[in-house]
This record gives sequence, structure tokens and C-alpha cells, in this order.
Amino acid sequence: MKVRQPTLTSAIAMSSKTLTAAALLLLPTLALSGQTKVAEKVDRTAEAKADAVQEHVQIKVDKRTPAYWRVTFDNPPFNIFGPETIPQMEKVVAAIESDSNLRVVVFESDVPGFFLTHYNFTPPLAESTGLPSSPTGLHPLPDMLVRISKSPVVSIALIRGRATGVGSELALACDMRFASRQKAILSQWEVGAGLVPGGGPMARLPRLMGRGRALEVLLGSDDINGELAEEYGYVNRSFDDDKLDPFVEALATRISGFDRQAIADTKRLVDFASLPSDPEIAAGWDAFITSVQRPAAQKKVGRLMEMGLQKDPDVEARLGHYTQTLADE
Amino acid sequence: MKVRQPTLTSAIAMSSKTLTAAALLLLPTLALSGQTKVAEKVDRTAEAKADAVQEHVQIKVDKRTPAYWRVTFDNPPFNIFGPETIPQMEKVVAAIESDSNLRVVVFESDVPGFFLTHYNFTPPLAESTGLPSSPTGLHPLPDMLVRISKSPVVSIALIRGRATGVGSELALACDMRFASRQKAILSQWEVGAGLVPGGGPMARLPRLMGRGRALEVLLGSDDINGELAEEYGYVNRSFDDDKLDPFVEALATRISGFDRQAIADTKRLVDFASLPSDPEIAAGWDAFITSVQRPAAQKKVGRLMEMGLQKDPDVEARLGHYTQTLADE
Amino acid sequence: MKVRQPTLTSAIAMSSKTLTAAALLLLPTLALSGQTKVAEKVDRTAEAKADAVQEHVQIKVDKRTPAYWRVTFDNPPFNIFGPETIPQMEKVVAAIESDSNLRVVVFESDVPGFFLTHYNFTPPLAESTGLPSSPTGLHPLPDMLVRISKSPVVSIALIRGRATGVGSELALACDMRFASRQKAILSQWEVGAGLVPGGGPMARLPRLMGRGRALEVLLGSDDINGELAEEYGYVNRSFDDDKLDPFVEALATRISGFDRQAIADTKRLVDFASLPSDPEIAAGWDAFITSVQRPAAQKKVGRLMEMGLQKDPDVEARLGHYTQTLADE
Repeated sequence: MKVRQPTLTSAIAMSSKTLTAAALLLLPTLALSGQTKVAEKVDRTAEAKADAVQEHVQIKVDKRTPAYWRVTFDNPPFNIFGPETIPQMEKVVAAIESDSNLRVVVFESDVPGFFLTHYNFTPPLAESTGLPSSPTGLHPLPDMLVRISKSPVVSIALIRGRATGVGSELALACDMRFASRQKAILSQWEVGAGLVPGGGPMARLPRLMGRGRALEVLLGSDDINGELAEEYGYVNRSFDDDKLDPFVEALATRISGFDRQAIADTKRLVDFASLPSDPEIAAGWDAFITSVQRPAAQKKVGRLMEMGLQKDPDVEARLGHYTQTLADE
Repeated sequence: MKVRQPTLTSAIAMSSKTLTAAALLLLPTLALSGQTKVAEKVDRTAEAKADAVQEHVQIKVDKRTPAYWRVTFDNPPFNIFGPETIPQMEKVVAAIESDSNLRVVVFESDVPGFFLTHYNFTPPLAESTGLPSSPTGLHPLPDMLVRISKSPVVSIALIRGRATGVGSELALACDMRFASRQKAILSQWEVGAGLVPGGGPMARLPRLMGRGRALEVLLGSDDINGELAEEYGYVNRSFDDDKLDPFVEALATRISGFDRQAIADTKRLVDFASLPSDPEIAAGWDAFITSVQRPAAQKKVGRLMEMGLQKDPDVEARLGHYTQTLADE
Repeated sequence: MKVRQPTLTSAIAMSSKTLTAAALLLLPTLALSGQTKVAEKVDRTAEAKADAVQEHVQIKVDKRTPAYWRVTFDNPPFNIFGPETIPQMEKVVAAIESDSNLRVVVFESDVPGFFLTHYNFTPPLAESTGLPSSPTGLHPLPDMLVRISKSPVVSIALIRGRATGVGSELALACDMRFASRQKAILSQWEVGAGLVPGGGPMARLPRLMGRGRALEVLLGSDDINGELAEEYGYVNRSFDDDKLDPFVEALATRISGFDRQAIADTKRLVDFASLPSDPEIAAGWDAFITSVQRPAAQKKVGRLMEMGLQKDPDVEARLGHYTQTLADE
């Protein structure tokens, strides 16, 4: 029998006292026996070990011109966002912040069916506890989202496939969002799993679409297609799938030719009128952290793992349906 | 000749000094001779006396499951909301607040053509002066609306028929609103009658649909049909009439299976980003109170009473048209 | 050879030290040789001199009833808004503020193809430096827009043709906006010319349509047609061109019959929930002032002048296209 690195679940069971609050917040304890079995079967620990050696690149940056970059999420099969994604994403955000020629960045996905989806529930412990804290005091994940919003660089989310949880939150942190009418799904699924969303949608959605529709998205926790996302203002516009890329390409190219200072000064004043404060974002993250440790969330996420979360394409593709089955239990 | 209880109109004429400011606010003096005659003809006083004995139940609560209630307005023929409705409604709100199993409440109507409409202009005096004040210092009516918004329980307005004045304000206080495309009418008619709306729409509408459309709703004071209400974001969505009930039933059932704490924590953070403060709501109520005592409002409401307000189904059904006729006078 | 009044461009070249900051803000130095040649060819100075004598009336006021006025922009061929327009507009705003019978004002245009467009880039110096400062400390242009928003009188923009720059900003300062689906174009073109918009759209657009769509309008700087303007909430509604005038006429007539005090009190509470503060508006104006003096803006506006800005109908009609050609250079 090989010696295994501690998984989150076993580590928490063995020595929860040694975990920092930050680590706990990210990582559901998932102490259900069923969940533990699932984690063992998948053997994520060994997989993560290999990743740590190879440093699997989940995010690609294509500098099309000095003024216009494309950032592509490429972590098949589902573009799950985990603690191992954070340092990679942080490098991208820091590069965006420090390049004085850059005007516009488009975020997109190379993984069919998924723009970017929920946080990884079975990461090896060390990947999360080793995360450096941000200068703002925010956890690195919401910190990066806030920095994207505040950057003088224009950010555009090109959404094809599922944008759930972190994926939706990244899209909401971008300056603009454009979606495929046929192939985009947006959702904040968290309440359906007993969680509170952590990446800012309680702050951003009501400012974008009004309280009523924001509460429907958050408390209904259901899948929103491209057409409804446009009607609600969840995205700027939805396009027929073959029209989406040309539109975003034209807009990004257009903006890339504009004056960087005029963009930055204009954006900063829009920020004043529309961005939540850092403490408001921090409060959302804290609420997520608290929620993920509650038995109700442990049980619901555990049940979803048993159903095939993070393994079964049907579960990942129809999250709104599977959280409904939890509600019916 | 029988001894009659004083009506609001005669009472104010006889002894306005003894009325508290709170009572005056609710009750237009309507000292026009035409108006007084109308009130006598209808003999609302005797009717109210009977109500006081029988305690006519205007609001029904159906506890479909421990987690999901339906609250139904049933005060034919128009679902007018009066001072006698307030204690009944307060009981319902208190029950919603104190039940620890409850997740979701749907507000709807059993009265064809009316969801819930404007405040009652001819109530007996005692029904209003006897109202207990709320702990927050708000008048009981806006206080209840604020409490519905802040409750950890999810509130959904299912709007079929007219939602005017208090009806629109209750819908706006709910977390979500869904309307019949064919059979819903929303309006804040008050400015058309020389009044300022008192239940919060100046605070809630601009946050929901932006300043321009909110000012059109409030200052145009006209009837808004289900289709326009959806386009403006006055409601989350409108559905073909036969699709409305199944949609709301499915959504309410879905949410009723979610974790109460996750709902409450998520909603509280949305509140921070989207709810007006209590003083802002209080200022709206005070403006209503002031407006209702002005001669312009007395005259306009008096004229509407002569035309058949609170009696003639056509006046109640086409309020936007009848306030137009006042404007043309 | 006749003695010429100094133009803005030559004056700034000759004695920029003597210019006040306020004058500089309004007036791009446009020191490019190409630009200077264009200005000479057009001989705007002589034209302006004639204007000063005749006091060309650019704004007409039609008092349809004591309660309902029409204000019409009539400065062909493009309804360009310049420093000479400001005193005329100030008189109109002061008249609106001081008339106690007035309820509603409709702003519209008599110039085919143009509602009201961008600021004049070639005015004689004295027209701008002579502008009186406003009591609020705001520059007269944003000051007037703020006063329109805060007035107890209801303001409605009837948009047919192009509403760009100041034209869009005036429309946004109005309480409501209605547009021709076929013939309206709205835009904030400034960032495309290296400028920051000065009349408040960074403050007003995100409150009206949410951050994402506001950033698209401002940073994309492109022409928005009537249909998209409606979808984004840039205007309340768009109508088929032949339906626009009857709708606005009916709404304005309706409101003109309502009680002035009820309108004013209702509007003031909506203001609280939806209007930016004066310092926020001032910050936008300051950013414009700074931007107009930067070489990037000088160069881009200069190139547009060479292309035919303020002369060639095609440039004025398709500003979004021509700023694109700058971006491609």
C-alpha cells in the first residue's frame, strides 16, 4: 500500500485544528462516508501530485497584438477552477495589470461545453493552504476578480458553454459579457447546494439587473440560458453562436485602437458609480466560507459528489437539474 | 334614523384636532360635498361595523408544506387594501417571520381582475387610529413591506389582475414578481390623483428599472401591462396566462427544498446592495401623508369617488384612463 | 487682409498662459498643422463674428400651454452644441425653473438627422472664456444638465436623429427618453477620439443600464440604434418613427394635467435613489478637461477635423465608423 498525501477530507478528519481558516473556507470538509469513497475512487491526490510536478497549464495567454490579448481556459473536461488554478490566474492578472500597452483582454474557453465552472471540491490540501494572501486583505480568489474590475484594461467575457460559480463570477467581474444564444449557460448554483456564493454575485448581480432578477438567479440557483441572460442583463447581449466570435473580435479590435488613458479615466468614473466596495466583496467571501462548513452544505455537496459531480458530464452539464433532485430528497 | 359611527370624512370635519398625524396621513379628508354624498350613499360605515363584528377575513394562508406557504388576497370585488386589512396582514407577516421551517411564500389573489389595489378612501375612523405603531418607527403599512423584503423567507408575487398602489408596492417589496402577460396590470396611479405614493416605489422602482423608466411609471401614473412590465423589469418575467401558475409553482417548490440558512445569508448580502434604508422609506410615507391633505388631492380623489372609485368596476379596472379625465378637466 | 479675431486654436498657440483653466477645458488646442488649415478654410471666426452680432437663435421655446412647453434645437446642419449655445440654453433652463405653472418640457430637434450632437471644436475664444460660472461651482454645461434633472418640471427627450456627446448627455439628464426606432442614433463617442465624456454619462449610464452595458457604450464608443438603445435601457422605449410623436404628445399632455406639487415631491424622492451627486458630475467634467489637453486627443480630434468633422455630413452621421478608422491608423 502506497503512502498517500492527505486529501482535504481525510486531512480535515485527522487534524482539523491545524488547518487555517482560509484553507477551511475553500475546502468543504465533506466528511460523509459516501463522499470519502468517491474521492478515493477518483484518486485525485495522485493526479494532483502529477500536476504539481508537471504544472499543468490551465490558462493560455495569446498576445494577438500588444494592445489585445486573449486569455483561454483550458482545463478539460469541465474547466473546474481549483486552488491550483489560482496561482496561474494570479500571474495572468498581474501581467494584465503591469503591461502598459494593453487595452483589452478577452476571456474565453477551449473546452467544449464549459466556459469556466465551479470550485474544485477535492483538491489536495497543500495546493490551498499554500496560497499567498493578497495585499488588499481579500482572499486571492475574490481579490483577482476585484482587480480585473478595477484594471485600466478592458475585460470582455466571451461565454460559450457553462459559466457556473467561479465561471459566472469571473464573467461578472469582467467589464462586459457576450454570450452564445444557443450554447451559453450561466448560473449561480450555490444556494441549491446549501452554499452561499463567494465570488461577489450578491454584490454584482443586483447592480446589474435589479434586485428581483438577481434574487431569482441566486435563490432559484437554476441554469440560465443565453436568451434569458440577455433579457435579464446578466450578459450585455447574446448572439447566435456563429455571430458571437466575429462580434467580440470586432469590438475588442476596435477598443484596442483607443487611447489607454481615456479608457482608464472613463472606466474609473464608471467604477465609482457601479463597483461594490472591497468590504462588501469580503463579506460575501466570508459568508461562503461559513456556509461550506455547515452540515447542510456538506451533505448536499456530498450527495452531488455521489451522483457524479466533477466526474459525470451529465451532472456537470445539468447542475440546475441535479440540485433540484437534492431539493426533492 | 339610526346613530352612525363617524366616517373618516365627517370625523375630520368635526374634530380634526383630535386626530393623530398618523391617522390623518392615511385618510384623505375628502371634504368635498360631492365626495361626502358619495360616502353616504355607499354607507360604508354600516358595512365596516358589520365587518368589525364578523372580522371579515381578507387574507388566507395555505400552508402547502412546512416550507412553502401561499398567501391569498380575497377581499372582493376589488381587493382594496384598507386600515382593516393592516392587522390581518401584520399577523401574516409576523407568522412568516417566526416560522423556522418556512423557505418561501407566494402572494396571489382569489379575486378575478385584481391582485391587490389602492388604499381604501372611506374607512371608519377607529379602524385607522387604533393601529399599533411598529418598533422601527415606521407606519405599520410601510413597516410590513420592509419586513417582507428583509425576511429570510423568499417572497414571490404572482400577479394576475390589477396591482395598483398598495398592490404594486407589495409586489415591489417581494423578492420576485411574475405576471400574467394577458391579465396583469401594474401601476402607481397616485400622482394622477394628486398624491405621492406612500409604500416605497420612489425608492424601489429606480433601483429596479433605472431612473428613466421609474419616472415614467411614477409620473405617467398610467396602467402598465404584463408585456411592458417585463420589458421594464417591473416584474422578473411575464408568462402567457396558462404558463404563469406552473412556473411559479415549480420555482417555489424548488426553493422550498433549499437550505434556509444559505437562502438567508445570500439574501442579506443582496439586501445590502439593493434595499433602500428605512429612513428613505419613511420619507416616502411622510410625503404621501402630506400630499393626501392637500386641496389638489382632496379634489382629485373626490372627483374620482364621484366617478365611481371603489364602486364602479370600470373605474377600478381602468384607473389610468380615469386619472386622465381628471387631467383633462 | 482683414484683421481676424483669434480662433481657439491660434489663440492657444499664441498665448496659452492667458487662458483660464475653464477655457482650456472646453477647447482642444488642436495644434496640429492640418487642423489649423482646416479651421482657416472654414473661416469659422468670421462666421462666429456674424453670429455674435445677430445672436443666432439655436433653441426655440414653444409654450403650447402654460403647463407644457416644447424646446427645439435648431442649429443646422448638425445641431452642434458650442459655447455660444450655453447662454441660450441657460436662459431656457432658468425659464423652466422659474415658471410656477409648468409641469412638463419636451426637448426635440428641427434639424433632420440630428437631435443634438457633440461640442463645437472650433469656437472663437471669447465665446467660451466669457461664460459665467454657476452658483454650484459646476461648469455651466454640466450645471445645466444637473439642474434639468433636479427641476420639479418633468423633462422628456424626443430623440430622432443623432444624439451624440452633449446630445446624449442632455437626453440622459432628462427624466425620460423616447426614441425613433428607425431614425435615432445615440452614442458617447468620446473615448474613440481620445477624450473622456464630460457631461455625466459615466455617472448616469451605469445607474440606468448597469455597469456592463454602460461600459460597452462608453468604451466601445460606437453608434447605438434605437432598437438596441431600448433593449439596453438607454431610452425608455423606442417607437416606429410615425408612432413616436403621438406617444410623446399624449404622455406630455397627460402629465401636464397633473398636480405640480405631487410631481415635484415624487420626483425628489426618486432623485434621492437615482441621481449622482454634484461632485461626481464635477469629477467627470474635470476628467474631460484633462483629456482634451492630452496629445492623444489633440491628434485624434485633429485627424477627425481633417476627415471632415463639423463639415462633412457623412462624418457627422457615421461618427462610430470614423473613430474606428482612427483606431486602425
